[in-house]
Amino acid sequence: MNVAGRPYRTIWLKPDDERVVQLIDQRALPHRFVVEDVRTVQEMAAAIREMHVRGAPLIGAAAGYGMYLAMLAEMQPEEAATILRATRPTAVNLAWAIERQLAQIASGSTLAEKIALAREMADAAANDDAEHCRQIGLHGLELIEAIAARKNGQPVNILTHCNAGWLACVDYGSATAPIYAAHDRGVPVHVWVDETRPRNQGSKLTAWELGEHGVAHTVIADNAGGHLMQRGAVDLVLVGTDRTTYTGDVANKIGTYLKALAAKDSGVPFYVALPSSSFDWTMRDGLAEIPIEERGAEEVKHADGWADGRMVEVRVTPEGSPAANYAFDVTPRRLISGLITERGICDPNEQSILAMFPEHAR
Amino acid sequence: MNVAGRPYRTIWLKPDDERVVQLIDQRALPHRFVVEDVRTVQEMAAAIREMHVRGAPLIGAAAGYGMYLAMLAEMQPEEAATILRATRPTAVNLAWAIERQLAQIASGSTLAEKIALAREMADAAANDDAEHCRQIGLHGLELIEAIAARKNGQPVNILTHCNAGWLACVDYGSATAPIYAAHDRGVPVHVWVDETRPRNQGSKLTAWELGEHGVAHTVIADNAGGHLMQRGAVDLVLVGTDRTTYTGDVANKIGTYLKALAAKDSGVPFYVALPSSSFDWTMRDGLAEIPIEERGAEEVKHADGWADGRMVEVRVTPEGSPAANYAFDVTPRRLISGLITERGICDPNEQSILAMFPEHAR
Repeated sequence: MNVAGRPYRTIWLKPDDERVVQLIDQRALPHRFVVEDVRTVQEMAAAIREMHVRGAPLIGAAAGYGMYLAMLAEMQPEEAATILRATRPTAVNLAWAIERQLAQIASGSTLAEKIALAREMADAAANDDAEHCRQIGLHGLELIEAIAARKNGQPVNILTHCNAGWLACVDYGSATAPIYAAHDRGVPVHVWVDETRPRNQGSKLTAWELGEHGVAHTVIADNAGGHLMQRGAVDLVLVGTDRTTYTGDVANKIGTYLKALAAKDSGVPFYVALPSSSFDWTMRDGLAEIPIEERGAEEVKHADGWADGRMVEVRVTPEGSPAANYAFDVTPRRLISGLITERGICDPNEQSILAMFPEHAR
Repeated sequence: MNVAGRPYRTIWLKPDDERVVQLIDQRALPHRFVVEDVRTVQEMAAAIREMHVRGAPLIGAAAGYGMYLAMLAEMQPEEAATILRATRPTAVNLAWAIERQLAQIASGSTLAEKIALAREMADAAANDDAEHCRQIGLHGLELIEAIAARKNGQPVNILTHCNAGWLACVDYGSATAPIYAAHDRGVPVHVWVDETRPRNQGSKLTAWELGEHGVAHTVIADNAGGHLMQRGAVDLVLVGTDRTTYTGDVANKIGTYLKALAAKDSGVPFYVALPSSSFDWTMRDGLAEIPIEERGAEEVKHADGWADGRMVEVRVTPEGSPAANYAFDVTPRRLISGLITERGICDPNEQSILAMFPEHAR
């Protein structure tokens, strides 16, 4: 999407030197826009581990390009795979991207061929991710257009939580894809952006994305969404997911469940946008089976932002107070209006999901 | 309650010079504990206006002491009242405390008598507030003890939002009063403290209060409460209120409604603690009638905290992104288990509330 009027992806080959991968170093956002040159698999591993890039789809794409850089450096593929796997051991997309590259590289005979194959696979994976998000955007656009038709030119108010935006993917995003599609076609939209404590992915990333692309938006405290829905100020909730069971239970950033409850209570449609790679085809009961990561308490004890021309981290809690930091929650399928996938919109239940993805039926 | 092992109120006469009022300057909390000497009504007005003190009951008490300081300075009572009224024009307790003092002062003949009467009234109002909170604590204690009886010595987990603590009152607090009562009697309690963005009254004030008094607690992001309730980690939700209709609809800090929805969804009891001065005896429909203050967007765009040995404010949003800041929301009575008042616990409906406060029946 656009940054200062120019289209970007989150990761790409450097135009004048395709032995270099470039990516947006997201740690500096929204305060500075930093493009980083990545020349080795070790540098790519550091970029993944230290969260210069984040978001499951983007991590997968970064790992794919990391394998390409390793081939350029004439490394053993397995050695590179080990380095990359260690960066985020629980990231499913990462492991999957590495396995695909290993198989692809193994099919080449000469080094030159292996390099070419690795590059081809990295590009194809990135393009596939972008295309899936674009398709999600087109399917979700229909929802937004239907609401717009009832609003007589007033903007469609969409609430989103966390960053399921293009910064988490290669392009378009998942929850944001329908928003960009609507905006680009001239359908008036306005987005309520939950700041999404403790890491503030909403106020830092989603607000920045939307602003750079020219989409009207307003940042709100995570506490405000219920009030807005109660007062009719939200027409649609659109969120992403880290993992969705094949029965339609949705794990997403902590706080998503509270917004789903409010949407249900006020009759606001609540949709989850996801590439089908985010389905877990092995899990039936989200509440019982999806493990919830507990992250470091420091994130809750602190906030970081911009002061005096630099990034500053401040402690917001008393020195002696403990804090807890649950990263995700599970929204039960009964609170969800529908799932927007690259193949279309399905209901949050096993029958509807497997009808759209029959290759995963047992 | 205790600060570093020593009992405090939020406002008191200086022991060795009763022409001076002392109060805790809450702007420095939780990072520094500052006691401020207030010598004139102008200084008291500044303390109220600039939020050295906050919380409806404490603002009322501060205004009462402000009138006493004005009498000491031989001011015209109406002049002092005008100065104090202008500090927080919409605070009902403030206006009410000033009116009571004006009537009280008018009943004296000499200046010495007026000073003595004003002091008596200020002290009585502060003592009444503390006593009401203490009574709320005793009634709420019964709820906690009943839960404790089922927990075999495991702590009762209580979630609270914002600061309805002793720092908002003269002593004990409203939502915290039952917690302190339980703790002081040896009933094991643990409090989940919502940080309460954007002003962070939970992480700054409630966590500090509980820590200083020795109550086990854990600070969490506002997003986390739903997940905790879903997983059985919350036995009771206790919150305060800024205004409650005589039919039981509760206006409180933004985000309260989301926690009430989660409590209902998980079968967790959700109680609101309030001195009866927080009832609005004129309002029937909270959603339709209670006005919701919109505060400055700067609070959402920024966070403040401690860094490098001083308070620092950082911007957490992109420079160009707008923000909105709704201060309160309304929790409909259907989501509330009960109201804990100084007279006892009543159901959130007109009949039960007016049965407990028959003097307000029409």
